[in-house]
Amino acid sequence: MKKWFIASLLTLFVLASVFGSNPATAAGGGSGSQGADQDSDTPKNVIYLIGDGMGVTYNTAYRYYKNGGFSEDMADTEFDHHLVGQQKTHPHDEEENITDSAASATAMATGSKTYNNAIAVDHDLNELETALEVAKASDKSTGLVATSEITHATPASFGAHDESRHNHAEIADDYFDERINDQMKVDVLLGGGIEYFDREDRNLIEEFQNEGYDFVSNAQEMQQSQNSQLLGLFSEGGLPKKWDRTEETPSLENMTQTAIDTLSQDEEGFFLMVEGSQIDWAGHANDIAGAMSEMEDFEAAFAAAIDFAEQDGETLVVATADHNTGGFSLGLDGEYNWNAEPLHEMHRTPEFITEEILETEDIEGTVDAYIDWALTSEEIGALEEALLLPTADRSGEVEGIIKDAVDKRTFTGWTTSGHTGEDVNVYAYGPGKDNFQGLTDNIEHGDFLKSFMAQ
Amino acid sequence: MKKWFIASLLTLFVLASVFGSNPATAAGGGSGSQGADQDSDTPKNVIYLIGDGMGVTYNTAYRYYKNGGFSEDMADTEFDHHLVGQQKTHPHDEEENITDSAASATAMATGSKTYNNAIAVDHDLNELETALEVAKASDKSTGLVATSEITHATPASFGAHDESRHNHAEIADDYFDERINDQMKVDVLLGGGIEYFDREDRNLIEEFQNEGYDFVSNAQEMQQSQNSQLLGLFSEGGLPKKWDRTEETPSLENMTQTAIDTLSQDEEGFFLMVEGSQIDWAGHANDIAGAMSEMEDFEAAFAAAIDFAEQDGETLVVATADHNTGGFSLGLDGEYNWNAEPLHEMHRTPEFITEEILETEDIEGTVDAYIDWALTSEEIGALEEALLLPTADRSGEVEGIIKDAVDKRTFTGWTTSGHTGEDVNVYAYGPGKDNFQGLTDNIEHGDFLKSFMAQ
Repeated sequence: MKKWFIASLLTLFVLASVFGSNPATAAGGGSGSQGADQDSDTPKNVIYLIGDGMGVTYNTAYRYYKNGGFSEDMADTEFDHHLVGQQKTHPHDEEENITDSAASATAMATGSKTYNNAIAVDHDLNELETALEVAKASDKSTGLVATSEITHATPASFGAHDESRHNHAEIADDYFDERINDQMKVDVLLGGGIEYFDREDRNLIEEFQNEGYDFVSNAQEMQQSQNSQLLGLFSEGGLPKKWDRTEETPSLENMTQTAIDTLSQDEEGFFLMVEGSQIDWAGHANDIAGAMSEMEDFEAAFAAAIDFAEQDGETLVVATADHNTGGFSLGLDGEYNWNAEPLHEMHRTPEFITEEILETEDIEGTVDAYIDWALTSEEIGALEEALLLPTADRSGEVEGIIKDAVDKRTFTGWTTSGHTGEDVNVYAYGPGKDNFQGLTDNIEHGDFLKSFMAQ
Repeated sequence: MKKWFIASLLTLFVLASVFGSNPATAAGGGSGSQGADQDSDTPKNVIYLIGDGMGVTYNTAYRYYKNGGFSEDMADTEFDHHLVGQQKTHPHDEEENITDSAASATAMATGSKTYNNAIAVDHDLNELETALEVAKASDKSTGLVATSEITHATPASFGAHDESRHNHAEIADDYFDERINDQMKVDVLLGGGIEYFDREDRNLIEEFQNEGYDFVSNAQEMQQSQNSQLLGLFSEGGLPKKWDRTEETPSLENMTQTAIDTLSQDEEGFFLMVEGSQIDWAGHANDIAGAMSEMEDFEAAFAAAIDFAEQDGETLVVATADHNTGGFSLGLDGEYNWNAEPLHEMHRTPEFITEEILETEDIEGTVDAYIDWALTSEEIGALEEALLLPTADRSGEVEGIIKDAVDKRTFTGWTTSGHTGEDVNVYAYGPGKDNFQGLTDNIEHGDFLKSFMAQ
């Protein structure tokens, strides 16, 4: 045997014992160079998905929901396959130690903790550079996708700077007005919020079109566009929830796929942030049906991102949450069950059903049309009384009665209309994923994303 | 340059690109053979710690509690350093899909799902072999440590078999009567539950002593024993909580350290299960003060296990929970804060303070002695009224008023007196830890532990 061959074998052997496995296994685990790259390389592309308000309970609940709830072997969700750890979400705020979506998105986008309400600015209102901006400065393409207004706290913290998340019009202006190396900052913007672009004082839609963007306002137009820059606004405010949508409105998966198809044409790579915005809204409303609707929407978007990353081999996909919402529990009042069946027997969210009851004043007809289980006569009676209330009070009361009926049948608990402080899960796939393993602080996410996008 | 040297360099380079880092870094990560072993080898010893009821919220809450709650940089807990993933806890039960402690401990001990209430038996009441029994069959030493009765569901599922967790006396008998290869099954038993050993029908304490066990009943006796087999029972039922203990009662850390010192004398290795039993009891009682007391106790025991494993290099340490309890949330009723300060200003748990109020009938004196913040006059008034209730109702009412006062000041929410179904965290250190990474099912834990202990 030649000396160099023995030396190579010896080197392999030494390294194998260091890594605690034989080299064939170690290399084979990645099934070729593409797979191996996944664990430690710097990604060319990043798809960062945020399930707003998606605390640990939402992830477990969604598994119970998908499995019907009573099987010995509960099949994993798309997320489950990729769990790598958790993140700490606390803000740097003198008055509140539970984060809002602005402070946490700023942390994940910029690598800096800030006060609740801040959009990528620090306590002195200095602008904090975001991972999306770093990507654009590196000549990559960039995108923001959300089911809320695209100017809402989470996407805004990646693409704009403002002292307050409430300044939606200024945030929309920032998307248009601020340039990086004379280029537009965000190439693909898909979500809701027409009202902040088509305003009395300014028509940003026309301005984007004059810069060469396609403007699309429904799913069909979105599918047809072949442009490399795209502004898609599909509703005045936030999009309808998944269970309540018509064909006009794209799903989060459709928007994510469109963004990936568009941005991946750029040979320099891309940065895409995708938000499942209304998991949080359902949590604030203590609406378990809405929460499962939006988890379905978010899971499909995550699966689309993973599919692309599996083909591409140079894309890091991270899915996580910014905080937990609602103090949601699986189980209530001593019951050792969480029953998902009543949710499968609903075809619209309580919000939608409420609107229709208020419009038609036909309680039983509306309920029969959208819910396969029967309300009790007490619940029907309460709904009838609610319709006699002053107009301003009706909607909250009707929706509350329907949500309580669902909670009682599913054994769902809630403690707050706000956020809660528990650590949230982190799911990751692709090159760079090792950085997210174990417990991270949300600012570490910003640091990693920026360092990846700088290359 | 010699050919063999170039070949070695080339091989290193190829492997480095496969692993995505340079070989020096990759090898350095393991810092010698002990470190490298940690990730993939089979451990000689296992210390498996269960924080009963320790859902994700308890882990985050404890970090807030330790840090005072308002720092930008929240220091990690002992657990945080070792987060590797989560586990699914659902039982295989036709009536309940949220687990009790018996079904989940059986899963982790045996690798099989079963019905709620089962102690290491399946639906047909067949005995399921436990990891502790496999260890004993492999001539290793074995131990069980808990702050509950040592016959309680969690330790019982590792060391006994019974159709019902409620059969404490039968479980104590099983610990003594059932042998493996003619040897006693459990070498070290430390916890509460004298009542199930010193019974009218049988004195198991004497029987254990006749087999060569030292019997100890306080911390001092426990420290002095040099025997290789040890029965320590420190209270009739469960031990007092950490905040309420006197010097007589060992801490969970003391018991864990004693068990490790004793079992690690065995050159064949050992299996030790340690339970922080009363995190769950505090959760059932919706008692955040008690929960933090027991998290302190459990963290110190985990740290002692990690210290031993770091020195030893052949020990796997896993800390996890069996389920979540209480539907506990950080934040309540729209408040974006969880305030730990009132807990630092309490010197006993609500349970202890209640007992003392009932005994002394001195509300203000007792409260002043143990709580540094003031109750409102309404709260004092409610306590006065509670003392006028029939004896049977007094205790629950008094303790409820104190716990509500704590919840209001800390912004702590609860949804149930029972368990909830969320996935729980898994922390691991040492050889074999890679098996626990990502999302596992609780039965996988049992399978891993049994395969480790068979070697």
